[in-house]
Amino acid sequence: MPQKIKLSTIADSLGVSTATVSLALRDSPLVAGTTRERIKEHARAIGYIYNRRAASLRTSRSGIVGVVVHDIMNPFFAEILRSIETELDRSRQTFILSNHYDQLEKQRTFLDTLLQLGADGVIMSPAIGTPAADIEMLEGNGLPAVLIAREVVGAEVPVFRGDDAFGIGLATDHLIALGHRRIAMVGGTDQTSTGRDRYRGYVAAMEKARIVVDPNWRVAGPRTKQGGFEAAPRFLAIADRPTAAVCWNDLVAIGLMNGIARAGLTPGVEISVTGYDDLEEAAIATPALTSVWNGQREVGRRAARALLDRLNGVAFHAPQDLITPELHVRQSTGNPLERG
Amino acid sequence: MPQKIKLSTIADSLGVSTATVSLALRDSPLVAGTTRERIKEHARAIGYIYNRRAASLRTSRSGIVGVVVHDIMNPFFAEILRSIETELDRSRQTFILSNHYDQLEKQRTFLDTLLQLGADGVIMSPAIGTPAADIEMLEGNGLPAVLIAREVVGAEVPVFRGDDAFGIGLATDHLIALGHRRIAMVGGTDQTSTGRDRYRGYVAAMEKARIVVDPNWRVAGPRTKQGGFEAAPRFLAIADRPTAAVCWNDLVAIGLMNGIARAGLTPGVEISVTGYDDLEEAAIATPALTSVWNGQREVGRRAARALLDRLNGVAFHAPQDLITPELHVRQSTGNPLERG
Repeated sequence: MPQKIKLSTIADSLGVSTATVSLALRDSPLVAGTTRERIKEHARAIGYIYNRRAASLRTSRSGIVGVVVHDIMNPFFAEILRSIETELDRSRQTFILSNHYDQLEKQRTFLDTLLQLGADGVIMSPAIGTPAADIEMLEGNGLPAVLIAREVVGAEVPVFRGDDAFGIGLATDHLIALGHRRIAMVGGTDQTSTGRDRYRGYVAAMEKARIVVDPNWRVAGPRTKQGGFEAAPRFLAIADRPTAAVCWNDLVAIGLMNGIARAGLTPGVEISVTGYDDLEEAAIATPALTSVWNGQREVGRRAARALLDRLNGVAFHAPQDLITPELHVRQSTGNPLERG
Repeated sequence: MPQKIKLSTIADSLGVSTATVSLALRDSPLVAGTTRERIKEHARAIGYIYNRRAASLRTSRSGIVGVVVHDIMNPFFAEILRSIETELDRSRQTFILSNHYDQLEKQRTFLDTLLQLGADGVIMSPAIGTPAADIEMLEGNGLPAVLIAREVVGAEVPVFRGDDAFGIGLATDHLIALGHRRIAMVGGTDQTSTGRDRYRGYVAAMEKARIVVDPNWRVAGPRTKQGGFEAAPRFLAIADRPTAAVCWNDLVAIGLMNGIARAGLTPGVEISVTGYDDLEEAAIATPALTSVWNGQREVGRRAARALLDRLNGVAFHAPQDLITPELHVRQSTGNPLERG
């Protein structure tokens, strides 16, 4: 159990004031870095534990920020989380993380926990079906929210995400320019704003090129590598088989390429494949994956800064901050073997 | 800001006792599930926020468990974390996560935060160089610890991990049985107990087969897909090139296979490759990866249960609980093309 050591004991030992010790233990920038470290080191050595729970009742900030996303096992979110973490570390905020797996109830339980702990704010990629009222409830209870990746219609909070319709258009235009006409879209769901935007962007690019989209070309559902792998037989069985696939994300694209290879065809030669997100892995896949860079590190950085700004009382302006995607062309796309 | 609504207001509205409302809002199992949900829903509707900070000063448990690992972007840890989360959810514990990136200072900052918040316990994969004194300090301050994946020599706390020397022996024996004699070990570091155990297991298996290990066969360092990919030229340049590679983990193996393919050779045919961890991805890689199942979901489950047991006052017995790995043979290993 924590020893009862007084701040004045530490202050006396080091020849500084009790106020300096108190500030140093709260990581206040008012105390010089070297002094702060010396005080914390001494406090640790003698077993002093600063009780933030008691302190947080006296001050208005708990130093805790909540982050909730669909699934941290998805490297897309992992890359966003890493840049959020870097920003929060810099401001000495603690980062509480949870997955909601698109279960509204799980998301609500976590948000309740944040309210109960008196967290300072939350960064969230909202679960499918999140009503604007849930976000308003947070704001009404003094828990400012910032959204990433997905928007919630009607919620007046900052949103940071890529311009999905534009990005998927880049991939589709690229395949059309290579000579493809029969292009499938594999993966994703219409239940999220991202899903709807990407499908809309694909259809718009096809129509702009005067290609009539065959409904059979939509292989909806997969969002993981496993899902893309399992979708390969479905894709390969489409009547008058497409020569290319625009995939929902890199995971689906890499899974689909593995499935195509398992069926004895060569992805990038017999079937062109594009990804989305440009994960670190895209460049080292076999074949290297043509993908749409979606700015996930930038999304994380901007979202964390926007939240920190809100905590510091800075008003936010744009309700949406769309990051403009870029196409990175690699080996997984080429001219179709046959012209249809 | 939170409204000042009394528990008795909620109790009166629903015709239950104030004590029932209080228990329900703390998720106490003493209140039936349906009643609990009805009370919480009503409380939410009228904007009541339960203040856990104040409550945690009155009770001995905060409901918070800390988890700190090297890097959540590593799917090995992500799989462990998912099963920890499942167990903690069941006990309605909140899960605070952090990466330490093998930086002792970052790990200490997080552990300090847990102490300050009055967390109930911590599950950690200790950073390289963690002294036993750091673990003892936690225990001495009433924060029980459970270790995963790595041990800390001298720390008397439960450790859950796979039997690394045995597991890597399975992979090495398999390659030897296929006829390989020149077998490299790619990836990992001697700075961790895991790294030392795996290298030791590889050497032991080679010596058991009376193969003299050439020091050039050790390609140390890589632990990621990118690292494995970049190590491919180094591996391929070894004089009298090995016909097989035992890899540190699946990420290194998949990266190495991609790098071998990029160099125009066929992994699984010209070079046999084994992974370690048997991530979900191993089965769908091209070629499908022969890997050592390392029980990460089991590690997470046992670690979470051990911590919950400790919180409930159950004494722990074994300081180490080694999970026995299994070899899963797939397409990435075969007979050597030439016998050397």
